[in-house]
Amino acid sequence: MAAGDIVHNTSICFKRYLTNEQPTESDMEIFAGELTLSLAEGTRDVLVRNLYLSPDPYMRNRMREIYNSYLPPFEPGKPITGFGVSKVILSNHPDFEVNDVVAGIITWEKYSVIKDGSGLRNVSSIDVPLSYHIGILGLPGLTAYAGFFNICNPRKGENVFVSAAAGAVGQLVGQFAKLTGCYVVGSAGTDEKVELLKVELGYDDAFNYKKEPDLTVALKRYFPEGIDIYFENVGGKMLEAVLYNLSNHARIAVCGMISQYVSGCGEPIYNLSQLTIRRAKMQGFLMSDYLHLHEEFTQYILCHLKKNNIVYIEDVIDGLENAPNAFMRLFQGKNVGKQVVRL
Amino acid sequence: MAAGDIVHNTSICFKRYLTNEQPTESDMEIFAGELTLSLAEGTRDVLVRNLYLSPDPYMRNRMREIYNSYLPPFEPGKPITGFGVSKVILSNHPDFEVNDVVAGIITWEKYSVIKDGSGLRNVSSIDVPLSYHIGILGLPGLTAYAGFFNICNPRKGENVFVSAAAGAVGQLVGQFAKLTGCYVVGSAGTDEKVELLKVELGYDDAFNYKKEPDLTVALKRYFPEGIDIYFENVGGKMLEAVLYNLSNHARIAVCGMISQYVSGCGEPIYNLSQLTIRRAKMQGFLMSDYLHLHEEFTQYILCHLKKNNIVYIEDVIDGLENAPNAFMRLFQGKNVGKQVVRL
Repeated sequence: MAAGDIVHNTSICFKRYLTNEQPTESDMEIFAGELTLSLAEGTRDVLVRNLYLSPDPYMRNRMREIYNSYLPPFEPGKPITGFGVSKVILSNHPDFEVNDVVAGIITWEKYSVIKDGSGLRNVSSIDVPLSYHIGILGLPGLTAYAGFFNICNPRKGENVFVSAAAGAVGQLVGQFAKLTGCYVVGSAGTDEKVELLKVELGYDDAFNYKKEPDLTVALKRYFPEGIDIYFENVGGKMLEAVLYNLSNHARIAVCGMISQYVSGCGEPIYNLSQLTIRRAKMQGFLMSDYLHLHEEFTQYILCHLKKNNIVYIEDVIDGLENAPNAFMRLFQGKNVGKQVVRL
Repeated sequence: MAAGDIVHNTSICFKRYLTNEQPTESDMEIFAGELTLSLAEGTRDVLVRNLYLSPDPYMRNRMREIYNSYLPPFEPGKPITGFGVSKVILSNHPDFEVNDVVAGIITWEKYSVIKDGSGLRNVSSIDVPLSYHIGILGLPGLTAYAGFFNICNPRKGENVFVSAAAGAVGQLVGQFAKLTGCYVVGSAGTDEKVELLKVELGYDDAFNYKKEPDLTVALKRYFPEGIDIYFENVGGKMLEAVLYNLSNHARIAVCGMISQYVSGCGEPIYNLSQLTIRRAKMQGFLMSDYLHLHEEFTQYILCHLKKNNIVYIEDVIDGLENAPNAFMRLFQGKNVGKQVVRL
């Protein structure tokens, strides 16, 4: 491929705003188009061919027409944007050369033009599978790292509970907890995931929340002395049950509440006055506030990967045209590990 | 009075456990008894005559038969216990002499025997009205101080909202906020209290929550740029409205949720995923975890009292036999300022 070539370019475009409904594949549209490989003169733009796309739960919030959130809504008719790993095809930017591998925010297309190369990181020299840059070394990795270490302040011997524990973030939090010397239990929604947690991911124990008639009782069984740290990914009834099982001075990192992404203001939560009784902290956070930890985080991950101290599970779907389905899987609890789309 | 004298002793005893109902005066019983003024030999006990009793909202939790909370339940048939200010009548303890004024946990009686003088502070040398030791210099004072300064980490210019702002704790938080250079708005349940907040207590603004059809809209009016700090005393709909009006990196100190003391697990709260969107912290706390701040706190209060920088409002009820009514007033929103019983 060279400048001036005309190539096929497929795009996954956002179709319409949602309110509180479950997202479906029909909320996105696939367009087959053409693109001339070129960059506007006088810019620092970069043209990339995308290799991996990252469907992430936070993107559901961008499907809502709400403008005062931390990210603007998607624009109907425009390609979905999200994290990805790509190869540089043309570059006007001094930091990127043709064939460099980059990670950053791209469009859900075969090719993306990145204005001024904005937000791209050159990851060519890092010797890991390329998809890791949207996973263990990307958003979910830094989210797990910042949330666990900076919000939860874990100490050796503490009792840690992780919901959605077999997901992109949860699988890492559990392993960070074990590396810190904590006792860690995870919950997930299928027996297959529970097995994965116990056998592959080193969780001390795990349970299928769908098979527990009373989550408060279930947590009491796993945490007779109470939960010191809860890494919150789901909200709803699980959070309520956790509130009744907190130990004193417990910390809850609110990474997300996937149950609430769909239902808007979400399921209501009872038992909040337990926060006072237990002198507990509940803190929301976004990875974007912890970019200053990126270097420290990357070293931590690479060091533990090299020592085989961390297992990283991906759920790979092939083909750009399957990206909408890959996204829906997040809200159906179908993904096992980090959901990835390989082009 | 001297050792060996027989005196009349009136006691307010706890009658029966409650679950989720509003407390009433009939949950307590008044007993007229007699007491021989004496102390067991070989002990460090102290016998005191009580001057002021402190009805506090947290005591509602002790009227519930729940044993895993931060304080044990009251015992039916035994006198209510709570903070008080007293005069020493007899002392076996080297730190306390006859006629010393002490503050600490006492029984709701005319006379209390304090085992080993446990928890008593000798406040004889502090030149303030004696009732201040159960208020601005006691539980509500240290609660306001620790919650505002240690949980909320206020910075000059920040926007602070306080609910139950004319109560024992709220009146102080608002003034601490002003002393820190914050903008502070309070809510209360009567126009009289709202007036007090604006005219006497130096709040920048205040509103009667019962007159607001939509609390989210009301808060938006007072905080167009969002709430940086919320000092939470009430729970329920007010908390939900606050969650929708948080600014980024907001902090919520959960001092109490008086709406939940009565209803048990409380009203459910929607909008909690705002914690993530706003990267906000919500932290429960108890004064008892901040006793190490007592000296620093006392100096802060005494210094500002001396300079007339702080106004302190009390709602005084006379007579031990009126203590049950004084307690109920807390849950009826009747007290203006700190509720106190003077014997």
